[in-house]
Amino acid sequence: MFEYNLLAKEGRARVGVFKTPHGDLQTPVFAPVGTQASVKTLTPEHLKELGASLVLSNTYHLYLRPGDELVAEMGGLHKFMQWPNPMLTDSGGYQVFSLALTRKIDDDGVTFKSHIDGSTHRFTPEKSIAIQENLGADIIMAFDECSDPNDHAYSLKAMERTHRWAERSLKAHVRADQALFGIVQGGVDPDLRATSAKFIASLPFPGIAIGGLSVGETKDEMHRSLDVVTPLLPENKPRYLMGVGTPEDLINGIARGVDIFDCVLPTRLARHHAAFSSTGRLNLMNATFKRDTRPIDESCDCYTCRTFTRAYLRHLINAKELLAGTLLSIHNLHALIQLVVDIRGLIQTGSFESKVPSLLDQWGNNAQKPTPVRLTD
Amino acid sequence: MFEYNLLAKEGRARVGVFKTPHGDLQTPVFAPVGTQASVKTLTPEHLKELGASLVLSNTYHLYLRPGDELVAEMGGLHKFMQWPNPMLTDSGGYQVFSLALTRKIDDDGVTFKSHIDGSTHRFTPEKSIAIQENLGADIIMAFDECSDPNDHAYSLKAMERTHRWAERSLKAHVRADQALFGIVQGGVDPDLRATSAKFIASLPFPGIAIGGLSVGETKDEMHRSLDVVTPLLPENKPRYLMGVGTPEDLINGIARGVDIFDCVLPTRLARHHAAFSSTGRLNLMNATFKRDTRPIDESCDCYTCRTFTRAYLRHLINAKELLAGTLLSIHNLHALIQLVVDIRGLIQTGSFESKVPSLLDQWGNNAQKPTPVRLTD
Repeated sequence: MFEYNLLAKEGRARVGVFKTPHGDLQTPVFAPVGTQASVKTLTPEHLKELGASLVLSNTYHLYLRPGDELVAEMGGLHKFMQWPNPMLTDSGGYQVFSLALTRKIDDDGVTFKSHIDGSTHRFTPEKSIAIQENLGADIIMAFDECSDPNDHAYSLKAMERTHRWAERSLKAHVRADQALFGIVQGGVDPDLRATSAKFIASLPFPGIAIGGLSVGETKDEMHRSLDVVTPLLPENKPRYLMGVGTPEDLINGIARGVDIFDCVLPTRLARHHAAFSSTGRLNLMNATFKRDTRPIDESCDCYTCRTFTRAYLRHLINAKELLAGTLLSIHNLHALIQLVVDIRGLIQTGSFESKVPSLLDQWGNNAQKPTPVRLTD
Repeated sequence: MFEYNLLAKEGRARVGVFKTPHGDLQTPVFAPVGTQASVKTLTPEHLKELGASLVLSNTYHLYLRPGDELVAEMGGLHKFMQWPNPMLTDSGGYQVFSLALTRKIDDDGVTFKSHIDGSTHRFTPEKSIAIQENLGADIIMAFDECSDPNDHAYSLKAMERTHRWAERSLKAHVRADQALFGIVQGGVDPDLRATSAKFIASLPFPGIAIGGLSVGETKDEMHRSLDVVTPLLPENKPRYLMGVGTPEDLINGIARGVDIFDCVLPTRLARHHAAFSSTGRLNLMNATFKRDTRPIDESCDCYTCRTFTRAYLRHLINAKELLAGTLLSIHNLHALIQLVVDIRGLIQTGSFESKVPSLLDQWGNNAQKPTPVRLTD
C-alpha cells in the first residue's frame, strides 16, 4: 500500500510520490495543521482551492476533545472534518510535553493533566496507536519523547525511551490502511542523532519522521542534525520533519533531503496580522498600509492577493474583523504550498541547488526571530 | 436609472426588479449586513455562492473606521470590499442613537462621541449624505431620527425632524448613480405612521424605507404599523423594512408589501452557536448534538448542510474553533435568502397567501424572544 517512488533527485533534494488510501501525495509537501480537526478559519473548500494535499491533526487535542472514540463513531477524521485527501496525525507526545498542565514520565508511558480541565490521563505507545487508529489518518506516528535539545543526558534518555516506544508502537499497530512512521530523536548531539537515525531506519516503518527540532535549538544546529540524519535514512521511504515551517526552513530542509513538513506558523501568524511575502514578512496592522492598494505580495496568485488590497486587509485587522484571519491564512498557506511546488519543479529540472541562495535571499526575511519555538496552536 | 418594475402581485405581496448600477435586484430580497465592510467571517465568494445579491454596510461604522474619505480614495465600497453586486448604506442615524457613547440632538443634527475612542463628531443630513456619497453604495438613506416607539411625544418630535431632514437629504444629494431612499418614522402610533408615510411618499425618493421598527415594540405593533404604512406608499417604488429579519418577520413583512430586508441576526446568531431551521432554532452547542450525524436542517442545501454533521459543528463550537461561526453564518444567511427566493416563486404563481400559515408554522420557532431588540452588530 504505502509505496514511496522517487521521481527525481538533485543532490540530497528529492521529488517523489507516496501512495496513501486517500490519494497520491506528491513530495516535497507542506501540510497545513488542523489541530482540532479544523485548519483554523478555513473551510475544506479553501484548502482544496489553495492546493493543500496533506492535512495534519493533533492526537492529543482530538483525544481530549471531542474524543477519538467519537471521531471513530462518526466515520473517522476524514469524514468528520470532510477532508477527502491524505491526513496525518502526530503521536500526542509533543503536546503532552509542551501543553499538558503536569506530566510524569516513566518507561511505560506518560501520565498528564489535560490543559482543558485538569483531568488526569495516561498515554503509552499502545494508547497513542489505539487513539490514532480510531482517528484513522493515513499517516500516523510512533509515540516518542521530545527532549530539551541542549540537555545531553536527557536527550540520551529520551532517545532510548523513544526507541523502545517505537518498537512497541510497531507491535501495537494493526490497521493496514495506515502508514506508521518511526521518529528519530537525539537532541542536537550528532552522535545521538546518528544512533537514532540508524536504529529507527532498521525498523520496518514505511516512513521516518525527524522530531525534536525547531524546539529551541539554533538554525545551524537544526541543519547539522539534518545533515547527520538524512544520509542515514533509506532512500525509498519518505522523511518528515515535524513542526517545521518558515519559508527558509522548507528550502533548507528540502535541500537536506526532507520530503514532508508541517507547521502551525502560517495560520498562527495570520491570526496575528502577519503575512509571508517574497520580500519579507509584513505586519498588516501597520499604519503604512492604510492607503496601500497593492496586494500582500505582487508575485502571489492566491485568492487574497488576487482580490484584496493591503488597505482593506489593514482595515479588517484594525476593525477586529474575523475575515482578516481567514484571508491571511489563505495567503500564508498558499505561499508555503506554492513555494514547495515551485521547488518540486526546480528539482525535476535539476536547477534547485543553484537556486537555493537566491531562494533563501528572497524568502529569508520571513523568520523574524532567530529560532522560533515550535508552536502548538 | 432606478426603475422599479413590478412583475407580480398577490394581495399586498409583490415581486419586482429594482435596477441599480451594479445589477438588477430581484425583490423581495434579504440583505446580509457587512457592518464594517465585511459580512462577518465570510468572503465575497461565500456570499455569491449562497445567493446574496444586496449587501448592507453601516455609515456610522465606516465613517469612524476606516473613514469614508479613505474608502472613496480606494475606489468606493464595492471595490474596497470586493462586492460586485448592489450595495446599500444606512444613514448612520440609528447607530448614533444606539451605539454612540453620548449624543445631543438638535434640529440641525446630532453631536455624538465615538464608541471606539470617545472622540466627538457631528452628523447632519448633509454630512450623512456626503459620507454616503463617499462610500458609493447603490442605495443610500436619508438621515433620520429613530424614536422609542412607545414614547408618543418623542415619536412625534422625531418624526417631524425626520421629515425636515428628509427634505435636506434630498437637497444635499448629488450623485446620480445612487438611489436615495426616504425613511418613514412615527413609532407605533398609527396616525403618526400614516402622516409620515404620506409625507415621505410625497417626496421624489426612488424608494422608501420604513424605520423605527424591531426596536422594542411587539410583533403585533410592528404588523399594525406595516398595515398602516405600505398601503399609503406608491406601487412603483421599492419598500425597505430596516433591520428586520427573523424568518417569520420576512414572511409577515412580505405579506404586508415589503420588498427589502436586512438584519445582522443570521450572522450574529451564528457566532453564538444558533442556527435557523425549518423545525425551529437550534443551539448547536447543546450536548444532544454530540453524536448527531444529521445536517443542521435536512431540507437545506447550503454548503454547511451539504457537507457537515451537527456533531462536527458542535465539536467546532465546543473547541472554540472560528470555523463554526463561518459555517453557521453560511447556513443562517442561506436559510433567509432561500426563504425569500421561495416566497418570490410562490407569489409569482399566486400561491403565497394560502401558504403563509404553513410557512409561519414551519419557521415560527426561530424567534425565541417575543421582540428581539434590533441588533447593531
